[in-house]
Amino acid sequence: MPKNAFYAQSGGVTAVINASACGVIEAARAHPDKIGKVYAGKNGIIGALTEELIDTSRESDEAIAALRHTPSGAFGSCRYKLKSLEENLREYERLIEVFKAHDIGYFFYNGGGDSADTCYKVSQLSEKMGFPVQAIHVPKTVDNDLPITDNCPGFGSVAKYIAVSTREASYDVRSMSRTSTKVFVLEVMGRHAGWIAAAGGLAADENNDIPIVILFPEVEFDQEAFFAKVKENVEKYDYCTVVVSEGCKWPDGRFLAEQGTRDAFGHAQLGGAAPVVANMIKDALGYKYHWAVADYLQRAARHLASKSDVEQAYALGEAAVNMALEGHNSIMPTVVRESSSPYKWSIGMAPLSEVANVEKMMPMDYISDDGYGITDACKEYLYPLIQGEAYPEYDENGMPRYVTLKGIAVPRKLADFEI
Amino acid sequence: MPKNAFYAQSGGVTAVINASACGVIEAARAHPDKIGKVYAGKNGIIGALTEELIDTSRESDEAIAALRHTPSGAFGSCRYKLKSLEENLREYERLIEVFKAHDIGYFFYNGGGDSADTCYKVSQLSEKMGFPVQAIHVPKTVDNDLPITDNCPGFGSVAKYIAVSTREASYDVRSMSRTSTKVFVLEVMGRHAGWIAAAGGLAADENNDIPIVILFPEVEFDQEAFFAKVKENVEKYDYCTVVVSEGCKWPDGRFLAEQGTRDAFGHAQLGGAAPVVANMIKDALGYKYHWAVADYLQRAARHLASKSDVEQAYALGEAAVNMALEGHNSIMPTVVRESSSPYKWSIGMAPLSEVANVEKMMPMDYISDDGYGITDACKEYLYPLIQGEAYPEYDENGMPRYVTLKGIAVPRKLADFEI
Repeated sequence: MPKNAFYAQSGGVTAVINASACGVIEAARAHPDKIGKVYAGKNGIIGALTEELIDTSRESDEAIAALRHTPSGAFGSCRYKLKSLEENLREYERLIEVFKAHDIGYFFYNGGGDSADTCYKVSQLSEKMGFPVQAIHVPKTVDNDLPITDNCPGFGSVAKYIAVSTREASYDVRSMSRTSTKVFVLEVMGRHAGWIAAAGGLAADENNDIPIVILFPEVEFDQEAFFAKVKENVEKYDYCTVVVSEGCKWPDGRFLAEQGTRDAFGHAQLGGAAPVVANMIKDALGYKYHWAVADYLQRAARHLASKSDVEQAYALGEAAVNMALEGHNSIMPTVVRESSSPYKWSIGMAPLSEVANVEKMMPMDYISDDGYGITDACKEYLYPLIQGEAYPEYDENGMPRYVTLKGIAVPRKLADFEI
Repeated sequence: MPKNAFYAQSGGVTAVINASACGVIEAARAHPDKIGKVYAGKNGIIGALTEELIDTSRESDEAIAALRHTPSGAFGSCRYKLKSLEENLREYERLIEVFKAHDIGYFFYNGGGDSADTCYKVSQLSEKMGFPVQAIHVPKTVDNDLPITDNCPGFGSVAKYIAVSTREASYDVRSMSRTSTKVFVLEVMGRHAGWIAAAGGLAADENNDIPIVILFPEVEFDQEAFFAKVKENVEKYDYCTVVVSEGCKWPDGRFLAEQGTRDAFGHAQLGGAAPVVANMIKDALGYKYHWAVADYLQRAARHLASKSDVEQAYALGEAAVNMALEGHNSIMPTVVRESSSPYKWSIGMAPLSEVANVEKMMPMDYISDDGYGITDACKEYLYPLIQGEAYPEYDENGMPRYVTLKGIAVPRKLADFEI
């Protein structure tokens, strides 16, 4: 009997993480002689600990195929990082117990940096605890901060959404600036790195002369210089778009959103870098403003996914299975960029020891000298990642046909486990 | 020589107002024997007063056709309402002066309620001031509050964007609720009526059991009942999505966003109903939350326009010209719903005297008995308006090909005019 596989989704979900799940499950189904069933962890690794497993073999081929165009995590995700073997032996023993009970020999973990660390620890079970399991990490994160791989599935689609939305909103403000809004502020995700904020810079190109000021987490916020830049744009164009990363900080290290605001009851500030930036512009320069906070809309926006991104998400899931079948353990399939124009890429392989706990920052030469824009090198990097459209199907009512799986549980065999 | 036409965009722009411009200009180009040139007002009616006219005959057929899939107002818009003839005779005399100087016999005004009033006043110039001009209003407003017409171009596309985005974000939260966000709050436009908020209710259907709580401007906010509803959903589904209209009010009439919040410098609140709602849920119920404010993203989102909406926007622009050529004045072409399922519609005609200053509210039987959802009658009304997709083209870099017109000015003939 071939071994079964465990698959789980981890961390913040994306528009295309289910495309990776689709790649894993379809590749496994193509090798029934080598892989038995794919059991998905309900809510990520927590499902493995609590023995809450979803039997993907109970889902139709059509339902699995529909994962390719369905955003979010179809099996549930979690924010839960395993401690080290030494610190929490109990959890690893439980994992082995569950894997043994369900005859699991493959562990596919689909997530970002913290998850790569978890996957790396699981990959050591074989050597350190004598339990044979092959652990392969499938990269995913809108933060685009995993090392070695050219980019991370999930990022390209957020980048496309932010680039397109920034262009659309900028056109809107440009139309209205004579008597109404002059400054539009859009807050985007990215607590540690400005990858997503950088995508806002794509709204402008040789055909679209849009004044965009980007506030990166990588650049210390200089209020006076920022005001001068916004003023310069408004005087030249009559409007200005500001894309602010949630990770942008005051010189003293506090996030811009932490302004010490209190409500009538003395509760701490309501959050949001965008309203803070919009208000400071109004106070200093008097411009009428609007602001938006994209939040989950950006990472869930499967309706505007990048085709590159969807294809890579699927290909990395598929490659993970094929690498497992080739006998690999403790690795992550990667995207290797062969050329930017035209965009050519292939699948590579990285050892998890070099992935876990390494954060890829944005190169400083992607940020323009004044700190408020992106360079041509950055555009050359970003454009391929947003290329192509990969629309979901819509039903007759005009709504996307996203799939919700049946999610039938694998019968439990073990006692409860407290996490 | 046939008379020239004046066309202008007014009020908040939409994803499809340029499709109406396209309809007007293409219909006029089809009748060179009856209509000379179409001059567009730069920044709406202000362009007529300041004699800043854009010569649309200088734009290629391709550029005009591209307006059909370009969001925003290609000629600029404004928020500027003409006073009555008696109150501001000077402005009407100036309009006549400009119209005479440029041989304008047709006035097409593309806007919402305030604009319909302006258009109505212009339509009376003939009778009251002896200047022959035919004034036709082309409806447009995301607020969907013009009377007589089944719906207003612009609304269907916002509704589709909010319905789809709410579904996507809800899937996201559903994935994460085990260890992360349990309540997601999305703020949408609609200061006076809950049409756009209602569209959030479309995220759930017979295949999508999503717990959505809508806060309508039409329903007085009852904090305790709201908390109970959110709690009920979280206990049943483990998560809850809240769609809050910017127009939702406290029982004392203040907007929810006006919470008396002050920043460290004593400045008034930063605005946003979503953060206010999210924070009150956290304080009362302790749930982890995220919130988003869609703001301009929703009305500019041409990338997800409704095909029904685009077609109607175009058809109403085209009909306005044809009605003018039939000799009509002081009217507005309307959408007439023939049937909802399948959706059939035709073009009707309404006198501006019955349109100006009449606001269409949402029927109360569109809101569910508990005040937090939409009824089947509402869904029957809304679905046709979001049916079909009408994607823009994208370039090789993955960005939409939105057109920016040359916008060549018609040579001025008159002295300056102060507005």
